[in-house]
Amino acid sequence: MFERIAILGTGLLGTSVGLALRAAGFKGQIAGWSRHSDQARLALEMGAIDSFAVDAMEAARAGQVILLAMPIYATLDFMAQLACVLGPEHLVTDVGSTKRLITESASRLYNTPERAAFLPGHPMAGKERGGAALADANLFRGAVWLFTDDPAARRSAQSAALAKDWREWIAAMGAKTLDLDPVRHDELVAWVSHLPQFAATALSALLEDEVGDAPELKDVGGRALREMTRLGASPYSMWRDIAHTNTEAVERALLKLEQRLAYLRENLRTPELRSEFERANRFRRE
Amino acid sequence: MFERIAILGTGLLGTSVGLALRAAGFKGQIAGWSRHSDQARLALEMGAIDSFAVDAMEAARAGQVILLAMPIYATLDFMAQLACVLGPEHLVTDVGSTKRLITESASRLYNTPERAAFLPGHPMAGKERGGAALADANLFRGAVWLFTDDPAARRSAQSAALAKDWREWIAAMGAKTLDLDPVRHDELVAWVSHLPQFAATALSALLEDEVGDAPELKDVGGRALREMTRLGASPYSMWRDIAHTNTEAVERALLKLEQRLAYLRENLRTPELRSEFERANRFRRE
Repeated sequence: MFERIAILGTGLLGTSVGLALRAAGFKGQIAGWSRHSDQARLALEMGAIDSFAVDAMEAARAGQVILLAMPIYATLDFMAQLACVLGPEHLVTDVGSTKRLITESASRLYNTPERAAFLPGHPMAGKERGGAALADANLFRGAVWLFTDDPAARRSAQSAALAKDWREWIAAMGAKTLDLDPVRHDELVAWVSHLPQFAATALSALLEDEVGDAPELKDVGGRALREMTRLGASPYSMWRDIAHTNTEAVERALLKLEQRLAYLRENLRTPELRSEFERANRFRRE
Repeated sequence: MFERIAILGTGLLGTSVGLALRAAGFKGQIAGWSRHSDQARLALEMGAIDSFAVDAMEAARAGQVILLAMPIYATLDFMAQLACVLGPEHLVTDVGSTKRLITESASRLYNTPERAAFLPGHPMAGKERGGAALADANLFRGAVWLFTDDPAARRSAQSAALAKDWREWIAAMGAKTLDLDPVRHDELVAWVSHLPQFAATALSALLEDEVGDAPELKDVGGRALREMTRLGASPYSMWRDIAHTNTEAVERALLKLEQRLAYLRENLRTPELRSEFERANRFRRE
């Protein structure tokens, strides 16, 4: 089992991984780094990391497993920088929400016997707001942690063992792992993750225009409204990279939702409304 | 304070009112009736009602306050039937989700000194599934209970006092009352209640078609997906009357949401995406 992990990016996910590793009994060193030093300091105070590094490259070199817990374009940048400074004794992994570009980059820059290994990962867990302060040792409990690993990867025995260990720690944090092809991953998450987010953003933005000037009226909606707009609080900074790196799949999903809403609108007084409710009920059947 | 209430319709809302009244210290008689006798029997077993009536009209006549807790068209039917058998010593009230038709009917059939009073009500509380078994004494705690009363109502002193008492019991159940014009009510709930429901139904029906054949993939979406589709479980039977009695307002709201989704889709890679996220964030600001 590895003894040193470097978490680059100590926001919500990175800090939660630190806390979850400790809660699962990880006894090794956890180094942290963040380009926002207050986030790294907070992660340290919370016990998610043992030390915080000033230099990300140095922290990465000193670790065995390096977790990139940052937005997608930042992940791609770090992947390029780290490929030159790490070797076959290292495993790099990530938490990026789209996987096609990251997995392609991993195939180009990693995963040969002479280089570091890269295991593309994506925990299906998060909150509508980011930051170390909201980190939670139980964030991954019951969640699915997706991998889009390259079956053709030719890894050193050392880094292959690290990848196996990392999967075991993820199970110890309470998550269920699932392997997918990266293209299939991006299509699937467009449906089950990105579409719900963009639908909540559109609904919240619309309601802000229509009833936002009457704050007391928001109470009227109750739980249904609160739930359907909770993700409206998600920041642009988290979602821009997703919109940019999974554009076509998200466009397809949004267009289908527009068509579905139009169909429902045109059938509010016809028997087709019943069929749509029954179809929706089937999606939610136990 | 009144001593006898008849709850006609002992589903989720009717049974919850019985439980909430008892929890708030109501010592009087609670009679129940349901056209599904198993629901009335269940409400009795749960302690929400003291007795269940075979004849709804008889139960209503014996009560001082009569709560209609049933779908909208059934409420309209009962309003017509009860208007002939009740008098100025009675207050009839309801929980229907659209209020224009019910308030119009109340103005025609009730609220003269010689007749029973009718107070149109709408608690903004519910669950995605109905039935007495899910009833909850705390369902109305923190919720808003809307009224669309006719300011021109000419009530008997007796029934005016009952209406005042009923509002006080609603406060005792933990709900906040708010008075609205019935047309404004229907427009407002189209935005904050009906639109979120129909959006969830459309999203769930779409996802059933797209990923419904791979049940393991539903887990992938996590909390965001579960929340955004929870209302997909709502039954047609509950929503048909709403779609039929608030069609124009719901159509307008759905069309606006379609346009908003299209705008977002066309701007996934432009700075407009940031503006939409910021607008959505404002709706969710604390």
